[in-house]
Amino acid sequence: MATTTETDAMRRAIALSARALGATAPNPVVGAVILDASGAVAGEGWHRKAGGPHAEVHALRDAGERVRGGTALVTLEPCNHTGRTGPCAQALIEAGVARVVYAVADPSPTAAGGGATLRAAGIEVESGLLAAEAEAVNVAWLTSVRRGRPYVRWKYAATLDGRIAAADGTSRWISSAESRADVHRLRAEADAVVVGSGTLIADDPHLAVRGIDGVTQPLRVVVDTRARITAAAPVLDDAAPTLVAVGKDADTAHLPGVDVVRLPYAAPSARGGEATGAGEAASGLDIDALLAELYARGVRSVLLEGGPTLAGAFVAAGAVDTVVAYLAPALLGAGPNALADAGISTIAQALRLDVTDVDRVGPDLRVTAVPTAPQES
Amino acid sequence: MATTTETDAMRRAIALSARALGATAPNPVVGAVILDASGAVAGEGWHRKAGGPHAEVHALRDAGERVRGGTALVTLEPCNHTGRTGPCAQALIEAGVARVVYAVADPSPTAAGGGATLRAAGIEVESGLLAAEAEAVNVAWLTSVRRGRPYVRWKYAATLDGRIAAADGTSRWISSAESRADVHRLRAEADAVVVGSGTLIADDPHLAVRGIDGVTQPLRVVVDTRARITAAAPVLDDAAPTLVAVGKDADTAHLPGVDVVRLPYAAPSARGGEATGAGEAASGLDIDALLAELYARGVRSVLLEGGPTLAGAFVAAGAVDTVVAYLAPALLGAGPNALADAGISTIAQALRLDVTDVDRVGPDLRVTAVPTAPQES
Ligand SMILES: NC(=O)c1ccc[n+]([C@@H]2O[C@H](COP(=O)([O-])OP(=O)(O)OC[C@H]3O[C@@H](n4cnc5c(N)ncnc54)[C@H](OP(=O)(O)O)[C@@H]3O)[C@@H](O)[C@H]2O)c1
Ligand SMILES: NC(=O)c1ccc[n+]([C@@H]2O[C@H](COP(=O)([O-])OP(=O)(O)OC[C@H]3O[C@@H](n4cnc5c(N)ncnc54)[C@H](OP(=O)(O)O)[C@@H]3O)[C@@H](O)[C@H]2O)c1
Repeated sequence: MATTTETDAMRRAIALSARALGATAPNPVVGAVILDASGAVAGEGWHRKAGGPHAEVHALRDAGERVRGGTALVTLEPCNHTGRTGPCAQALIEAGVARVVYAVADPSPTAAGGGATLRAAGIEVESGLLAAEAEAVNVAWLTSVRRGRPYVRWKYAATLDGRIAAADGTSRWISSAESRADVHRLRAEADAVVVGSGTLIADDPHLAVRGIDGVTQPLRVVVDTRARITAAAPVLDDAAPTLVAVGKDADTAHLPGVDVVRLPYAAPSARGGEATGAGEAASGLDIDALLAELYARGVRSVLLEGGPTLAGAFVAAGAVDTVVAYLAPALLGAGPNALADAGISTIAQALRLDVTDVDRVGPDLRVTAVPTAPQES
Repeated sequence: MATTTETDAMRRAIALSARALGATAPNPVVGAVILDASGAVAGEGWHRKAGGPHAEVHALRDAGERVRGGTALVTLEPCNHTGRTGPCAQALIEAGVARVVYAVADPSPTAAGGGATLRAAGIEVESGLLAAEAEAVNVAWLTSVRRGRPYVRWKYAATLDGRIAAADGTSRWISSAESRADVHRLRAEADAVVVGSGTLIADDPHLAVRGIDGVTQPLRVVVDTRARITAAAPVLDDAAPTLVAVGKDADTAHLPGVDVVRLPYAAPSARGGEATGAGEAASGLDIDALLAELYARGVRSVLLEGGPTLAGAFVAAGAVDTVVAYLAPALLGAGPNALADAGISTIAQALRLDVTDVDRVGPDLRVTAVPTAPQES
């Protein structure tokens, strides 16, 4: 059983881990706290970015000699493999810790097994302390490992009656300054921010994080089958990297030097059976292929910023893991909806969610919800 | 200054007043508590229905002789006029109270002035104690007096993306059993429940209150320009009174014995400028005329249950005083919206609200909001 001191230390380790959300891809966020043999905090650390030292190594360095006979609290099972850095299980053994407590087991096949290695070296090992809290912070990475694709958080801002703009297309500002600032926090925590070509053309967005110091900018991704983006688009500036996903036969001659990926088209049925009659290109790009490409590039968490058409395709693909709805206290009675065709035609097919959080953000409500049934992807 | 004992007594009086919500039209809800000269609770009462004794009279009877030299706590300024019952100010004077504390001044021209009468009789009078709490319970009646029309609470049940049904029209059950039970509570607190002919024809609803003992059933109102309702409709049974509002030249020969009111048609522009080309009947009935008719019948609070078309007309008429949205944690991406055309075409015209309450009702969210700006009606 973990002591109260250990529980406090684990809580601290979880908080430390959260500092690096959005900065560690393709790695998880991890925090570690070292207690010396008397139970006093001797060191702490967190994983800051891929290729840099793991949390345990930061904490061991911070603790120095005081680690001998002490306890290490780590939010994720210490890794067992030699990647860009040596295995943490080995480092803990060599440092002479007597006991290791971790919150969540490492689900990745390459890194797992650290707990067993530690035990084999005679170290007392306990797991599961504050597991739910640690999992919540690491949900994107854990989900991405489990599903083999990035974790997708879809955010939208709408009126209470579900409109994202008025009938004439005006939408400045549906949501409050506080909600817009909150979206920058979500962007900062994501490895990639994704929008469809409709949003690109309507809003010409920039998509980089503003107002947060020391942020690791997410990869900006535009899903633009026909490469309608122009070279002068703000999203192509150097504030953050940008990827333009286009159809396999799109003409991209006007985009020299732009990072372009060619993806297969979606099967027409994947767009909810909307008959367009405009041939295969009208169904857009294959969402699974898009996510596979992002995963291959190390993206573990995606903030899907819409618009409604692309969000519909993600919902239809079973590729929305969390919904964050900013609901502005206003009514419009007309105008485009927050979510367009997702292939759902009858009530029994509705995507059912569980509301996990409801918060006031300025005058708005922020509703966070996750699909009830485990999704196929 | 009111004492703590008096504040507690006023809180009790407010709670008592709320017991009769939906039962007192055209009167307000009022609660009263009498403290004897030593400050002990001597009696309490509340107004139960129009024509019956006022709250003060119930409380005075309950207190008996102990009222002499005591204090009366009343949620609304004691009335000054002789209506179906004698003036309460006079009753309090005759009973020999030394002090009267009321929460909210009576805004109605006929009943006001009770405070002054009491003072003139040498009674110590204080007002404003727990005024906000007392006003909240009496908001429907107070608003109706101020606006000269019934107070309108619009409730709807929708998915998080604002849909009230799937693309094929199925909607059973968008909201949870808990939310549906909660709607029966709202009905019980209303003097009238209103639906449009679209909802009538689609759902054939019953609209009476179920599951609440001793309830005063609200007047069921169907807004049915062309009198499309059939004599066999469940809403015409004897579970509660029913009013069918029809156009001035509607054929109602198939509705013998049904309470029918003929109303003027809405000006075509009142329906948000939707060009129907079908002549004046296509714009439905005049909402102000409907509300005036209900007011004349003693209705002070209306629960507008939709559908989206009629709700749009109410919003366009500036006749929605509170919105109660039951948001089911589900996404549909298609299907009818919670609110149809309300004459709002650009974002600056959006009906801005303030969220007053957010509650979990079973798995759903109940969001209560009121228009920010004082509305014209
Ligand atoms: N309030 C909010 O939260 C919010 C957020 C974002 C956007 N918006 C608003 O939404 C509006 C734009 O929305 P929108 O629905 O027109 O555009 P969108 O969803 O941003 O983009 C849709 C376009 O993406 C392309 N696409 C590529 N692959 C796709 C696939 N598999 N499925 C679906 N689309 C795919 C398609 O065009 P091609 O195939 O031709 O590339 C499609 O027309 C703008 O007015 C914007 O302001 C609001
Ligand atoms: N989820 C919910 O909270 C909820 C609540 C209610 C209904 N619903 C659903 O809503 C659907 C029906 O909605 P709806 O919009 O078609 O019907 P509705 O709003 O109930 O009724 C609209 C009809 O009312 C009549 N009307 C009379 N005067 C009017 C006026 N001034 N403005 C507007 N309408 C006026 C019009 O027909 P006439 O002029 O011909 O009489 C109009 O077509 C049903 O599927 C029902 O299940 C959902």
